[in-house]
Amino acid sequence: MRVFGIDPGSTRTGYGCVDTDGTRHRLVTCGALSMSSKAVLASRLQTIYVGLSRLIRESGADCVVVENLFHARNVRSALVLGHARGVAVLAAVEAGLPVVEYTPAEIKQAVVGYGRAEKTQIQQMVKLLLGLATAPSPHDAADALAVALCHAHSARAAAIGAAVPPTRRERSWRAVRDLPAARRSAP
Amino acid sequence: MRVFGIDPGSTRTGYGCVDTDGTRHRLVTCGALSMSSKAVLASRLQTIYVGLSRLIRESGADCVVVENLFHARNVRSALVLGHARGVAVLAAVEAGLPVVEYTPAEIKQAVVGYGRAEKTQIQQMVKLLLGLATAPSPHDAADALAVALCHAHSARAAAIGAAVPPTRRERSWRAVRDLPAARRSAP
Repeated sequence: MRVFGIDPGSTRTGYGCVDTDGTRHRLVTCGALSMSSKAVLASRLQTIYVGLSRLIRESGADCVVVENLFHARNVRSALVLGHARGVAVLAAVEAGLPVVEYTPAEIKQAVVGYGRAEKTQIQQMVKLLLGLATAPSPHDAADALAVALCHAHSARAAAIGAAVPPTRRERSWRAVRDLPAARRSAP
Repeated sequence: MRVFGIDPGSTRTGYGCVDTDGTRHRLVTCGALSMSSKAVLASRLQTIYVGLSRLIRESGADCVVVENLFHARNVRSALVLGHARGVAVLAAVEAGLPVVEYTPAEIKQAVVGYGRAEKTQIQQMVKLLLGLATAPSPHDAADALAVALCHAHSARAAAIGAAVPPTRRERSWRAVRDLPAARRSAP
């Protein structure tokens, strides 16, 4: 499976593509699209859309993974970030690929094993998981690779089922499901 | 001049196109793209982008005007709104048209003459300015027409210069500019 990860931003959008069988991962490409912060937002959005559309098409990826955001410093930065993320998601949909989303905590948990990991920890784990000589640079590229690796891990976990410990709700549901029918319907 | 106005939203995006000579305005088309709130955001963004791209191309507009946003209910809604606005702006840029932006207060001031006008006041003024029998519906379409009419007024004001009272900064700058050179360079 070839996974294309995106870390959207209005002045720098990171991207990273990996080949994975769920256990072993190989770097295909990574980098970042840089926009001048002096350029008007409309032209920056076009740079992101045109750039990502080309990179996704050339990568031959099977799916695109984008970080799902719920938080931002303030409303103003949320609006600007939303613009960049919107055109990134659009580039993936227009390429005809499925778009998968993970929260920042899910990505950190999958890659570092800790939902509140620091940026440098993510860079080091991406370097380790992909067997690279140095950590990917700029950090937007490392973040995009982390997003792709998160999906690689999650897809494997989903495939082998039991590898993911059930949530509390699932445990309760399974406990009820596995009861004999007579006891299940008892008051 | 033909102006295409957009009022972006993730579940309903209004659009309105007017012909204008700065004083008289004529409705070309208006309406709204509706998306199911149950659809995933990625597919809604594609509906907005594909729909607006077609409408802008068919309208033969000279420029696209979009409301400039700085506020939202909260960070979460700012992010979602940013996505919708991002692909709307992209549709305009990809059509090769200039994108003009006005704040909600500028639009209300230009159309109603009062920066804090209500939605119903905007609808009534749009109806009046375009000589329509009924107010445009849905209100997203009326809002998009207001955006287009704001640009029609501003473009006229800019053309006749003095119609727009200069800001305080412009007044000070003009005062300095109009001084004799000797006095300007004096300590």
